Amino acid sequence: MTICNDKSIALRLPPPALPGQFLSTVDTPSLVLDLDAFERNLGHMQERADQAGVRLRPHAKAHKCPDIGLAQIARGAVGICCQKVSEALPFVHAGIRDIHISNEIAGPGKARMLAAMALHARMSVCVDDVRQVAALAEACAQAGATLTVFVEIDVGQQRCGVGNADAALRLADAIANQPALRMGGLQAYHGGAQHRRPVTERREEAARAAAKTAQVLARLQAAGVRCDVVTGGGTGSVAFDLTSGVYTEIQPGSYVFMDGDYGRNEWEDALHFEHSLFIATTVMSVAASTRVVVDAGLKSMAVDSGLPLVWRALGANGLRYVAANDEHGIVEAGEDGTLPDLSAQLLLVPGHCDPTLNLYDDIIGIRGEIVECLWPVSARGLSR
Amino acid sequence: MTICNDKSIALRLPPPALPGQFLSTVDTPSLVLDLDAFERNLGHMQERADQAGVRLRPHAKAHKCPDIGLAQIARGAVGICCQKVSEALPFVHAGIRDIHISNEIAGPGKARMLAAMALHARMSVCVDDVRQVAALAEACAQAGATLTVFVEIDVGQQRCGVGNADAALRLADAIANQPALRMGGLQAYHGGAQHRRPVTERREEAARAAAKTAQVLARLQAAGVRCDVVTGGGTGSVAFDLTSGVYTEIQPGSYVFMDGDYGRNEWEDALHFEHSLFIATTVMSVAASTRVVVDAGLKSMAVDSGLPLVWRALGANGLRYVAANDEHGIVEAGEDGTLPDLSAQLLLVPGHCDPTLNLYDDIIGIRGEIVECLWPVSARGLSR
Repeated sequence: MTICNDKSIALRLPPPALPGQFLSTVDTPSLVLDLDAFERNLGHMQERADQAGVRLRPHAKAHKCPDIGLAQIARGAVGICCQKVSEALPFVHAGIRDIHISNEIAGPGKARMLAAMALHARMSVCVDDVRQVAALAEACAQAGATLTVFVEIDVGQQRCGVGNADAALRLADAIANQPALRMGGLQAYHGGAQHRRPVTERREEAARAAAKTAQVLARLQAAGVRCDVVTGGGTGSVAFDLTSGVYTEIQPGSYVFMDGDYGRNEWEDALHFEHSLFIATTVMSVAASTRVVVDAGLKSMAVDSGLPLVWRALGANGLRYVAANDEHGIVEAGEDGTLPDLSAQLLLVPGHCDPTLNLYDDIIGIRGEIVECLWPVSARGLSR
Repeated sequence: MTICNDKSIALRLPPPALPGQFLSTVDTPSLVLDLDAFERNLGHMQERADQAGVRLRPHAKAHKCPDIGLAQIARGAVGICCQKVSEALPFVHAGIRDIHISNEIAGPGKARMLAAMALHARMSVCVDDVRQVAALAEACAQAGATLTVFVEIDVGQQRCGVGNADAALRLADAIANQPALRMGGLQAYHGGAQHRRPVTERREEAARAAAKTAQVLARLQAAGVRCDVVTGGGTGSVAFDLTSGVYTEIQPGSYVFMDGDYGRNEWEDALHFEHSLFIATTVMSVAASTRVVVDAGLKSMAVDSGLPLVWRALGANGLRYVAANDEHGIVEAGEDGTLPDLSAQLLLVPGHCDPTLNLYDDIIGIRGEIVECLWPVSARGLSR
């Protein structure tokens, strides 16, 4: 008989939540998804894309969660985008069979990994350099795989992508010379345009991006290059991308959650998405009379696009989250001067959803005040 | 015979690195630790604490890595600090038997979890409210555990902790009334003082914190309260904390790595720690002539304390990391105007080590240019 004296073997962290549990009893900090608002956001975007006759390929970089990717596809999305090769892996494992890496890749191992995935799913990727084309072709040849390749053009973001039609044409020729590669078309994404606050500025930036894309497209088509797909666009510009006549496919990601930063955009007409993602946090210190301290700080939310908002809908009375330390947040009173008591739970709207999701292993889905599901953020940390 | 047609079962992400591999061939973005600099940092801090006759209890919130905690204890540290209850769990599993939670706890489940851990290791925790004392006592009674409790005082940080000796005395009395709780002493930590750039300002802030601590301590001792341990201090103030005559124990964390933010502090005399932690990143786009794009962005580093530095020691010639997107970084040339080519690997010094560590599952330990070990960041994401 073996006696095990190490009691720590039995010491395990409980799951973040269990179905049926009240939200108010969930341990914090934790990431909470309002399933009703989430489903309305998914339906609304799909409907708008369908009305415009444009394919929706949502960006999974925003959620990193196969359950959400499958929910998007179930509503009509043609596949998903990922931003990194490793990020795509959990989605392939979850059975998603059409994934676009909306990015260039370089460095050891990545092309080989992508070629291996292309044996299991229809994979595509972007290029803006002929050496990337050669590396992809070599990896595909070794794996016996084929890949679809998009030429990325810079339409104002000043990040990746070639700057003119001549360079795009050279890349298209390089792709055409590789039997394992297939020209997919053009990618034209203007990230900087997404967060301009006034509708008019976003409309103008989107129009400039679409005009440049149309010009490059015309040059390629005149040279006999087939571009079946023109892909791009994001949550901030989607109303204009859909009616541009240029994009055949849109890539929005953040519409699923709507973060604090996107919430500060001015929005036009009927295109309205709701905050669905929250950080549940608990008041852990009320030792001072002018502030309370909550248990969610820099390790529980990204602050690159501003501090989180305290969610008013739950009676927070204008409370303001005014400072984030690594594991603490400082919350001050609003106009009415009242502060929550020790152990009170608050919900925060994160400033930027994408890097916030990347901090959590699970999304707690709630319906009203009750936990309904626990969805793994399977691509969390997969940045290679 | 069963035939498995799902080839995706065989599709796995390779480990971030393997021992013996050259750093230059490591897939990126990845977190790299220069083991020589790291070991010098560990030895230097232990030596300074030993010289001062003050116990070193390094803060594991900076590294979240049991291998590093064990290395600190092997050199003479008396135990570790954690900032959250869940964060401590991997360290208990790794065999560390003296852990101080340098923080208050509130909300469902946390006191119960801490009491369960106290059956396996000597655990201590802070309070700044009598209701926290009651919750800890109840959880200990249910588990049959005992806990050491520290009264936290606010010495200038304006975060948690009681503001005066009267309040500290009330808490000490509340602890004394609970048979399952044992009064550990005082915690006095001034986080804000750590990052003041001039040595003189840090010295003054540390002196004020020590004076207030001494005053509260005298009141408690006069009232017959035993305070065996006075714990606090951080990397930025440690030179003054060690000679204050007040602290019996110091809690520095960042000295292990030295991030970009701490690097901007002015340092006095012989107390010098080296940058040991880097993010390896790869140039993924050179489509523009005025910049290159690297594959490490907001999901690969925390930017709350500034953008990363490009590490000059590897011939980076003044390159500047000027903007972080979610998965991209923009790098511009330095004085000599040269930019790295496609697929070149760069090392970055993160602006803030603690939340950067929290983004990675593994630390790649290198000796010179060769990978020596892979250490799991086991407490990554454990913020509850």
